Amino acid sequence: MLVVMQEGATEQQTENVIQRLVEMGFTVHRSTGVRHTVLGGVGPIDDFDPAALEVMEGVKECHRIVSPYKLASRHFKPAGTVLKIGSVEIGGPAVVMMAGPCSVENVDQMEQIARLIAEAGARIIRGGAFKPRSSPYSFQGMGEEGLRIMRAAADRNNLLVVSEVMDQVQIPLLLKYSDILQVGARNMQNFNLLRELGKVRKPILLKRGIAATIEELLLSAEYIMSGGNYEVMLCERGIRTFETSTRNTMDIAAIPVLKRLSHLPVIADPSHGTGKRDYVVPMARAALAAGADGLLVEVHPDPDHAISDGAQTLRPDQFQELMKQAATIAMAIGRRI
Amino acid sequence: MLVVMQEGATEQQTENVIQRLVEMGFTVHRSTGVRHTVLGGVGPIDDFDPAALEVMEGVKECHRIVSPYKLASRHFKPAGTVLKIGSVEIGGPAVVMMAGPCSVENVDQMEQIARLIAEAGARIIRGGAFKPRSSPYSFQGMGEEGLRIMRAAADRNNLLVVSEVMDQVQIPLLLKYSDILQVGARNMQNFNLLRELGKVRKPILLKRGIAATIEELLLSAEYIMSGGNYEVMLCERGIRTFETSTRNTMDIAAIPVLKRLSHLPVIADPSHGTGKRDYVVPMARAALAAGADGLLVEVHPDPDHAISDGAQTLRPDQFQELMKQAATIAMAIGRRI
Amino acid sequence: MLVVMQEGATEQQTENVIQRLVEMGFTVHRSTGVRHTVLGGVGPIDDFDPAALEVMEGVKECHRIVSPYKLASRHFKPAGTVLKIGSVEIGGPAVVMMAGPCSVENVDQMEQIARLIAEAGARIIRGGAFKPRSSPYSFQGMGEEGLRIMRAAADRNNLLVVSEVMDQVQIPLLLKYSDILQVGARNMQNFNLLRELGKVRKPILLKRGIAATIEELLLSAEYIMSGGNYEVMLCERGIRTFETSTRNTMDIAAIPVLKRLSHLPVIADPSHGTGKRDYVVPMARAALAAGADGLLVEVHPDPDHAISDGAQTLRPDQFQELMKQAATIAMAIGRRI
Amino acid sequence: MLVVMQEGATEQQTENVIQRLVEMGFTVHRSTGVRHTVLGGVGPIDDFDPAALEVMEGVKECHRIVSPYKLASRHFKPAGTVLKIGSVEIGGPAVVMMAGPCSVENVDQMEQIARLIAEAGARIIRGGAFKPRSSPYSFQGMGEEGLRIMRAAADRNNLLVVSEVMDQVQIPLLLKYSDILQVGARNMQNFNLLRELGKVRKPILLKRGIAATIEELLLSAEYIMSGGNYEVMLCERGIRTFETSTRNTMDIAAIPVLKRLSHLPVIADPSHGTGKRDYVVPMARAALAAGADGLLVEVHPDPDHAISDGAQTLRPDQFQELMKQAATIAMAIGRRI
Repeated sequence: MLVVMQEGATEQQTENVIQRLVEMGFTVHRSTGVRHTVLGGVGPIDDFDPAALEVMEGVKECHRIVSPYKLASRHFKPAGTVLKIGSVEIGGPAVVMMAGPCSVENVDQMEQIARLIAEAGARIIRGGAFKPRSSPYSFQGMGEEGLRIMRAAADRNNLLVVSEVMDQVQIPLLLKYSDILQVGARNMQNFNLLRELGKVRKPILLKRGIAATIEELLLSAEYIMSGGNYEVMLCERGIRTFETSTRNTMDIAAIPVLKRLSHLPVIADPSHGTGKRDYVVPMARAALAAGADGLLVEVHPDPDHAISDGAQTLRPDQFQELMKQAATIAMAIGRRI
Repeated sequence: MLVVMQEGATEQQTENVIQRLVEMGFTVHRSTGVRHTVLGGVGPIDDFDPAALEVMEGVKECHRIVSPYKLASRHFKPAGTVLKIGSVEIGGPAVVMMAGPCSVENVDQMEQIARLIAEAGARIIRGGAFKPRSSPYSFQGMGEEGLRIMRAAADRNNLLVVSEVMDQVQIPLLLKYSDILQVGARNMQNFNLLRELGKVRKPILLKRGIAATIEELLLSAEYIMSGGNYEVMLCERGIRTFETSTRNTMDIAAIPVLKRLSHLPVIADPSHGTGKRDYVVPMARAALAAGADGLLVEVHPDPDHAISDGAQTLRPDQFQELMKQAATIAMAIGRRI
Repeated sequence: MLVVMQEGATEQQTENVIQRLVEMGFTVHRSTGVRHTVLGGVGPIDDFDPAALEVMEGVKECHRIVSPYKLASRHFKPAGTVLKIGSVEIGGPAVVMMAGPCSVENVDQMEQIARLIAEAGARIIRGGAFKPRSSPYSFQGMGEEGLRIMRAAADRNNLLVVSEVMDQVQIPLLLKYSDILQVGARNMQNFNLLRELGKVRKPILLKRGIAATIEELLLSAEYIMSGGNYEVMLCERGIRTFETSTRNTMDIAAIPVLKRLSHLPVIADPSHGTGKRDYVVPMARAALAAGADGLLVEVHPDPDHAISDGAQTLRPDQFQELMKQAATIAMAIGRRI
Repeated sequence: MLVVMQEGATEQQTENVIQRLVEMGFTVHRSTGVRHTVLGGVGPIDDFDPAALEVMEGVKECHRIVSPYKLASRHFKPAGTVLKIGSVEIGGPAVVMMAGPCSVENVDQMEQIARLIAEAGARIIRGGAFKPRSSPYSFQGMGEEGLRIMRAAADRNNLLVVSEVMDQVQIPLLLKYSDILQVGARNMQNFNLLRELGKVRKPILLKRGIAATIEELLLSAEYIMSGGNYEVMLCERGIRTFETSTRNTMDIAAIPVLKRLSHLPVIADPSHGTGKRDYVVPMARAALAAGADGLLVEVHPDPDHAISDGAQTLRPDQFQELMKQAATIAMAIGRRI
């Protein structure tokens, strides 16, 4: 904690701040400059709202200097984490492709997609069984039946399964059918859910909220990890800005920033990141070129008739083309599919 | 649904779109202009992603023309809703003040605050028992014990209670102790929670998410109302923008916009809206001047030692001053406290 | 300048940073903590990009502690500035109303508006002669003829004139006809223009850019003031966010923030701030309640036929109603019109 | 123009809107649906604020259906524009690299950089002679002397020159020394400058403003093109969002969006897009993978001692590494350097 006093702050005001810091458990270093007195507080407290000191009399500004996350930080674990799930490694030299429909619809659809993506080189199938829809009048997902269908299709095609858990009560169900539990963007700060996921022993794919900073994403990862589950991967899927040509603004720079700040694998989701099919392939290439460890994309045999998110879902031929380009891009930066 | 075809779109492309609309249940009107053909689709479907048509060949753009919310709309119920909770009316001529600490801390604190705010003219006490903190290492709230303390303090001082429900499993507990259930900004799109709140018979105070549009806030209200609970009030508490002088940017214009689009009462929370004590009073006045039906503010006998959110919490003297100014502002626009 | 070294930074890295700071003219204080070494640099340099140190090896983060503006700061001049222009005072106890059409259209229009606003209590007429339109195919303003018409209408009705200067070459023309020179949002960082306005001896109304932080607005004021022109007023007129119900999101909190950080008068423009007539009056009230020293609003005898910005322009009856409400709100906070 | 009337709008209200549209020069088609009447207006007016109709009684919403830009649109010119400048083609199969320091500092610096980038494969040198600095106390550039130095270094190394024009009065000077005139982000909507650039006969590199939508960028290109200068290239360089890990959020998706909407070449500037050296190379790769026709990057023999923007400036070895990776990425999508 660094507290910068205003020019002309009185000795009494400075003393009050020092006393406050000491009460809070900090050891305080005082440095008196020409214009400003600066107080450096070193202490056991890692989570603290600097605004609480900023409102004190005579204080100009405060800066927190200890990152509020530890387990998720690259400093804590300099080597990158490689998650091993069956025969798949995420975070290693190979880029991992996860693909599938927005919603699980029926047996035929899932079998068709599973075969398609497995043949093209994907290792993990995605599909939603519980859909967090913004309208109460929309399709809400097939539930457990959907999970069962997806699991069977995955097993027949030697794929792993990733699916979203929307609520802590759904955790047992997801554990039964899914290899990776996905936390959606809207739940990134559902702390009750995160706490429960800290207790499970399956990897978590944690999506960035549309208004979440990179620091907040890492803090949510910390929530899970502090519960004992260290198998977390982070997912950039677009943030909300003023630009409306795309559904969200995909923050591609978040990929190298996350790789620098954290040891956790970073996945990119260009389907939600753009919301429109035509931009998914270029943005998938961009994410890989920026260093993503994997991609999560929506694909459907007939996107125009998909129950949900058809607009951002690739056709089979587009997905196959993407897989080819992805392989070349991966090679360009010393990786592979 | 309005679909505008591109200049030079072929007849076949236009036919494909018409066929697609018909499949979806729309009746289609075609209007051929000098440059563009426009298709107007009227139908039973109210929730539909325009992007699904925009990705079809030959389509320039789509516009949804039916609001995706109905029960929450001013069109559906032109007269403003007045919620009656005991002897308190929210949405009527009187502006309602809700105040209290961020977190319930102990019996003395709550009694002191309850007396203070009741004497100053507030009708409802607020206080958190379960705290959704962004760090796993922070204080997480007193739980049921906190609710019990707050209820007792409220009863002794003839106040109603509003408190946050963070998860559907907490609903029974909140129903037992609280008169109004608050949905926090982070849960505005926790649709499972909203669905369950549609089944309760107590009023809901629904806070706008920091990245939520006004339309999305109304759609979340619709979620609750479509379950049968029509007693919803909306709360503006700041959105996330590039400006960092304040914790959030309080969208004061959302107040008149919501009053125009919806019949539901609108509350403003200048404590979370600014994050700093010194700005709470001017922003509280601004919210009232813009037409808010009530205010939700944080107050504490000793904010510098509050367990949470002290920086944005008013001192007792500031709260009393606010109550006086609020009364004058209310009069200026033909209302009262 | 505060430089926080990473945990585990080497002595050599720390030495390199110290040497760099010394080269830059800073006196350096070193403070070695349990986890982090913190370097405090005090020096003559006020404008410096902290990122330049952040990219050095071993550096965790940097914080600039001296505000990059001085002349505009409240610290430099604790008493608020009151601009005296003829018999009008801006920044004093009276709230000043500035009103008029978006564009000057003809003699009759201006005379009608000047009479209307003068009778209702406004002191300053606004009107654009050069229009910065985002399309090359739009009306570009009447130019000097427009200024002459507005000056004559103002003189007949005992009003002052404020009008926008879009380019340094227009300064002489504006000085001839206008009492206050307005810098539009798009020119807030047109530093060549700001530098020239530092040399004139008429007050400047400086509008905040739609993506400008409060600090950047104050820095632009500093640009003008550092040239010798201390008569600057600041204007909040909405920033760009993800919300689209209003043209911009009016940052009402910027008003108390600016009043705290700076001694300069603060004006609010709810016409550009909302873009829609129905929201102008509530937002005008809100701005006054938050402490604005004046308002700038668009009014036209027949807004539906105004050449530009008709949607956000008040009708005469709406303006008269606003003036009445403004007077009451002003009284509520101890001011007057 | 599509005007959707509210449910229950009266016949008189609909007639008023029709009359208004006719006055404005539109031919009106009326389509009466179950819930809404929709008016389609076809006419000669391309630039029109839909809000002007939205504020009329009985109107629910309006949508403009003709793009406000024409010359810049892909529809107007389906084949991509290839700018030919000397022996360099921009927009063709080869990706073009533009590199150089933020500011021109002296003869040695420019000669060193020119040789370095030419040897690594760049074709164009960049460097600022007039610096639009946000503080009045910062270095403001070398002016004409800087341009002369850069021109000489470019000629000796067979490079073209791109440099920024900050004001219309600087145009003759820039025309004398520079092959491409750059319009900076802050001037993207300086319409006086754009109009004058429409009269010159040298290519313009137009940077996107930090709060500009893609549509607004294209409209600014239209401003230049409507004056007769069709040689415009567009440049994505980051937009302002809530995320602060990077100086701006680089909107990589803008690259494929612009390529789809417009025929103009698209350049990416990862130096300003990120503000930090370590992220420049991954973002440069991402931009190329997304389809950029060229890159604009800052490079300096000793970035830590660069006069300006050192933090985002590559070291020589980083630039050489980037050129190698860029070549491989270009090949991966069927292009070359």
